[in-house]
Amino acid sequence: MSDKVAILGAGLVGSAWAIVFARAGRNVSLFDGEAAQCEQALTRVAENMRELVGFGLIDDAEAALARISIAGSLAEALEGADYAQESVFERADVKTEFYKEIDKVAPADLVIGSSSSGIPASVFTEGLTCAPRCLIAHPINPPYVIPLVEVVPTPWTGDAAVQTCWDFMLEVGMEPVRLTREVDGFIANRLQAALLWEAFRLLEAGIATAEDIDKTISEGLGRRWTFIGPFQTIDLNAPGGLEDYAARLGAGFFEFVKQGEPAEPWSDAVIAKAHGEMRDKLPLKDQPARQAWRDKRLMALAKHFQEVGE
Amino acid sequence: MSDKVAILGAGLVGSAWAIVFARAGRNVSLFDGEAAQCEQALTRVAENMRELVGFGLIDDAEAALARISIAGSLAEALEGADYAQESVFERADVKTEFYKEIDKVAPADLVIGSSSSGIPASVFTEGLTCAPRCLIAHPINPPYVIPLVEVVPTPWTGDAAVQTCWDFMLEVGMEPVRLTREVDGFIANRLQAALLWEAFRLLEAGIATAEDIDKTISEGLGRRWTFIGPFQTIDLNAPGGLEDYAARLGAGFFEFVKQGEPAEPWSDAVIAKAHGEMRDKLPLKDQPARQAWRDKRLMALAKHFQEVGE
Repeated sequence: MSDKVAILGAGLVGSAWAIVFARAGRNVSLFDGEAAQCEQALTRVAENMRELVGFGLIDDAEAALARISIAGSLAEALEGADYAQESVFERADVKTEFYKEIDKVAPADLVIGSSSSGIPASVFTEGLTCAPRCLIAHPINPPYVIPLVEVVPTPWTGDAAVQTCWDFMLEVGMEPVRLTREVDGFIANRLQAALLWEAFRLLEAGIATAEDIDKTISEGLGRRWTFIGPFQTIDLNAPGGLEDYAARLGAGFFEFVKQGEPAEPWSDAVIAKAHGEMRDKLPLKDQPARQAWRDKRLMALAKHFQEVGE
Repeated sequence: MSDKVAILGAGLVGSAWAIVFARAGRNVSLFDGEAAQCEQALTRVAENMRELVGFGLIDDAEAALARISIAGSLAEALEGADYAQESVFERADVKTEFYKEIDKVAPADLVIGSSSSGIPASVFTEGLTCAPRCLIAHPINPPYVIPLVEVVPTPWTGDAAVQTCWDFMLEVGMEPVRLTREVDGFIANRLQAALLWEAFRLLEAGIATAEDIDKTISEGLGRRWTFIGPFQTIDLNAPGGLEDYAARLGAGFFEFVKQGEPAEPWSDAVIAKAHGEMRDKLPLKDQPARQAWRDKRLMALAKHFQEVGE
């Protein structure tokens, strides 16, 4: 592959990707329909890189920053690039229009991964020349400290494009997972939705406070899940492995799930209850500071993982 | 409170509790119906304490070990104790018989927390003199590196007993969460069941491998969940907080949940698929080594949390 990567859309997600790619030694060409976004992105990238230096998560921030440049046009951004990461505003019509523009100027072998967190790429790539080289590459923000990326082909994405995206993500230090086909919400948000649904139900039933339900994960289950997933967790929790665990606890777990049917949308009352509890602890004006705290905790955790290795 | 705490049942869970209590400076009296279990427990405790020393998670292992003694009888274990942690075999009839024995010899002010992970305490304490002082104190094993403990009163547990258990758990460095009433599976296993259900469904539908579904948590969502829970996660992910997040994504998340109805028990085929994938990576003969690896990772993570603080 060439050294050049294009970032299309320079908002929060695009600028976080710029850090991942530049940190891994790629030359990053940044394009946004609004030129001012690119300038802001560079400022944000420089700030975030300073924090990463503090945690020992980037070797030479200055050199990495120097590898990021602003492109004057979409064509300029894509010229000579063999991978582009698209992170424009997540609305089907916005993406559809933007991909038509991409299609006009994209090099013949360019692979384009979209950061879309919910809209499958088939919605906005159908019929385009570049369609066989388009797919989803969905990160959990910010990708420079959370390694997961969901790689999701459309029905018309070629195997070669999937492989290119997969290899590229590995090369820049991400941990790709591969979906065999499109499914609403991909994997991450489906799993998140399943967990949140039960969390809201317990809150609505008055079983515990939102804080205590949160702690059940953060002080409990999450301690394992942050380095082994849910399958491996249960596989290690029965002498005969996963099959043994399922035989012992599967029926009981099924009862818990059945008790939640039929699922109901989160009620306004339970949303207000959870939101109110959040606000008691964290006024909205303090949200930016808390987000910064979260991102620093993620950096410390990323460094911890780097140190303990496998 | 007195310095003395009783551990009733000296299996894996009981011996792990012994470490928590002795590390926090309590004198621990260990009782098990099978005397040999207590000797084995002491050996296991000494081993685990050596590992904790290696991670800087215990100051004086020798002194802590010296605080643990074996009681010759249930009465001896309970004499002068004001808290007992019961961790006998998890079967309703076994617990019921054991609590009858406890009731005969328990001091009048003894509070008894059960490590039961699924059977509510009302099942095995009804009608006993000590019943108002019995409740669930459910850990995620091993409690010396995972702080969560679910405190669950029965309909007849007194508020004073709940408070005693709560305060005690805080004093020994645990993070208690309080359920207002008994519910099947408490919180942790209900949340775990909800997540696993969707994970098995995705595997059964052929969307991804068990390894990639696992990674979606361990390399993705779990990175946040290990220090902020699911509610706080979404509260920080929308400018207007949780309410704003629910307005944006609640309807979409509801669709994912509805798509999974009606829930079906895990099929033999999907269990075999997940189990087979686990065995390809980890033959059962290597399970003990992998469990030891997991516990060391948990120690490293516990130390990391101790260092980064809040």
